[in-house]
Amino acid sequence: MSLKEDARNIVEAAIRRVLPENAVKAALESAGFASCRGRGGKLIIAAIGKAAWRMAKAAVDVLKGEFDGGVVITKYGHSSGPIEGLEIHEAGHPLPDENTLRGTEVLLRAVEDLNADDTVLFLISGGGSALFEKPQEGVSLSDLISVTEQLLACGADIVEINTIRKRLSSVKAGRFALRAAPAFVYSVVLSDVLGDRLDSIASGPAFPDSSTVDEAFAIVEKYALSLSPQLRKLLRHETPKALDNVETVITGSVLGLCEAAQEEARKLGYLPLFLTSTLDCEAREAGAFMAALAREVRSSGRPIAPPCALILGGETIVRLRGNGKGGRNQELALSAARGIAGLEGTVLASVGSDGTDGPTDAAGGIVDGDVWEALKRSGADPEKLLADNDSYHALASVGALVITGPTGVNVNDLTLLLCR
Amino acid sequence: MSLKEDARNIVEAAIRRVLPENAVKAALESAGFASCRGRGGKLIIAAIGKAAWRMAKAAVDVLKGEFDGGVVITKYGHSSGPIEGLEIHEAGHPLPDENTLRGTEVLLRAVEDLNADDTVLFLISGGGSALFEKPQEGVSLSDLISVTEQLLACGADIVEINTIRKRLSSVKAGRFALRAAPAFVYSVVLSDVLGDRLDSIASGPAFPDSSTVDEAFAIVEKYALSLSPQLRKLLRHETPKALDNVETVITGSVLGLCEAAQEEARKLGYLPLFLTSTLDCEAREAGAFMAALAREVRSSGRPIAPPCALILGGETIVRLRGNGKGGRNQELALSAARGIAGLEGTVLASVGSDGTDGPTDAAGGIVDGDVWEALKRSGADPEKLLADNDSYHALASVGALVITGPTGVNVNDLTLLLCR
Repeated sequence: MSLKEDARNIVEAAIRRVLPENAVKAALESAGFASCRGRGGKLIIAAIGKAAWRMAKAAVDVLKGEFDGGVVITKYGHSSGPIEGLEIHEAGHPLPDENTLRGTEVLLRAVEDLNADDTVLFLISGGGSALFEKPQEGVSLSDLISVTEQLLACGADIVEINTIRKRLSSVKAGRFALRAAPAFVYSVVLSDVLGDRLDSIASGPAFPDSSTVDEAFAIVEKYALSLSPQLRKLLRHETPKALDNVETVITGSVLGLCEAAQEEARKLGYLPLFLTSTLDCEAREAGAFMAALAREVRSSGRPIAPPCALILGGETIVRLRGNGKGGRNQELALSAARGIAGLEGTVLASVGSDGTDGPTDAAGGIVDGDVWEALKRSGADPEKLLADNDSYHALASVGALVITGPTGVNVNDLTLLLCR
Repeated sequence: MSLKEDARNIVEAAIRRVLPENAVKAALESAGFASCRGRGGKLIIAAIGKAAWRMAKAAVDVLKGEFDGGVVITKYGHSSGPIEGLEIHEAGHPLPDENTLRGTEVLLRAVEDLNADDTVLFLISGGGSALFEKPQEGVSLSDLISVTEQLLACGADIVEINTIRKRLSSVKAGRFALRAAPAFVYSVVLSDVLGDRLDSIASGPAFPDSSTVDEAFAIVEKYALSLSPQLRKLLRHETPKALDNVETVITGSVLGLCEAAQEEARKLGYLPLFLTSTLDCEAREAGAFMAALAREVRSSGRPIAPPCALILGGETIVRLRGNGKGGRNQELALSAARGIAGLEGTVLASVGSDGTDGPTDAAGGIVDGDVWEALKRSGADPEKLLADNDSYHALASVGALVITGPTGVNVNDLTLLLCR
């Protein structure tokens, strides 16, 4: 296999492994889930979020009918037909609506009369905050919306908004897990946001909450919020700080993407070095930085000797200076091509896990030490193309695009430097 | 010791070790030099380049009078008085002049009647190409200058210019070593240029040359150079491709700076990871990239677990957007401060080895997870300061500058990320 083929295979295999279907499959085949099921009892599926239908479908396929019903709540248009044994609801997103409350009621009924040997397989994906909601006793949907609007108008940040909202909800901030008790909640979280905290994904229905009553009142004071006595009273109730009936598996995150790439690289004989999962600088400069690493690997075997794979995850940014067509991964790759020009045995690939890099049909780019010269030989001016943010046309002209089509997952980008 | 003190100590010790004086001292205390001296015979010192006086002075101090004379040729104003036992010449730079030829003659006379058990300690620093020259028989100084001017006017690059000039010289491209034979030439090269090749530093007087006669004539043809028959004839002589009377030690390079930092870090208990010695991207983006590495080290112990030291050398660039005061190292550090804000046990230092970062009196900056918030608490707007390229005032206000004064060495910059 050529170095480029290896790079493409590593990248594509890594993305495959974080698809919702495969992520759920891996979680259900884990020792953690097996030990949950070991206690016998019933198994209820509860799936919320934009990927809820896909996650639930994958679970049902793996379980081959060995479960006892369940409920899916996803965004309008995000379900693809009935799934045997499950009740499927669609509701509002990003703002909750009456169908959110209706679906949530049905889901809660499905888990509220369980025993200590029963398990709730809780499948969480992005959007769960709006799609799964039951306000506390005495709080209406319009109360919730009004508080949110007040907070937004004052310029409160998302952590502040959630600190208040969690206290007005009877399912968020670990309270769903309390309602499901004494049953055990095996929670599979598909995290698609850079640096997400578990108590903020879907507002953490089955995760101990880290915010406090004092913080909540400090926010009320800071923004001089106008709240009814009933709402004020609810803010005084502390959220669960510990839960003893929950196990959480995070999957499909950028971390998972990088770890998958690491394993695939190792399988193909490259020693992996995982550098970061939170890359967030300018795309072209990240490309130049990676090229400096590549040159050192080639000249001195540092930080790691070939055959090796340097792995990074995150989401870089593009500063528009020209009128070209491209995306952050393609620009990173084109810039790296300049820095590795003339290097032997060096390939850099950078791809968006969703298969769509900027407003293009490419997922990203893949370059080696020949690309920069090949562009010049073709009569193009690669410096000018890079300056014009025209990475798409530059890479397309030398066959250096990675095209996967939409993958159905979005866990940021993967950058891979392969040296052999 | 605090983490910051450790970082300052590592950086300062690394710079100390690449000072010309210490570099020469280390070379003369090496096993290689000892085995040269083991053969007995005379020891002649020959020093050329801008740091020739300092290198020669250091050698004389180490040798404590145990040598047999020698010659120093440096740039006008670059010698600091007589050195006992040595003849000191100053000459033109960047263009050679009559004093170049005169000094070179004296130096050549000092090495031309030596025996096989004698040693020439050849101390080379930047600028040696202009300061050390004896044209081939039949070539005048004005011939040399006229050829150089023709080549420059055609847009020839430095490799092309040197390929021609080396052939018109009787000391460049390994020919000095031939003239000193049968004596042995122990060559200590102070390399201050990023990625320098040994046959290009001072045009490699004691290093086998990699250019060929065919390449020389291809350049003559490419630029349609007008050359006298005598010069054409000289181009036909091949330069030495192998030398059996030379040993070369490179010292004082950015690589040496990074390796020194690596050893100092290890001494203080930090596991070093040497990432690159050719960093060349935009300063603030390099800072953001380093912050992404720091976050990963802290959150997952990757690519290496604390206590650790990530080490980089090179020279980043600043894109001026505002009117502030700063330098590339200070801007890198300020940008990293944003990315590591709130992280415990993390310090990043970035310094210019010459002690002068941009048009400031600082060598660079040193930041930890508190700097960004400290700036805000002081009433400053760190985002705005960074956007204005005002890293000097930002870092100065929170005591985050590194000030060393001029160090007398220039081997690019050192960036150090320390986690404990």
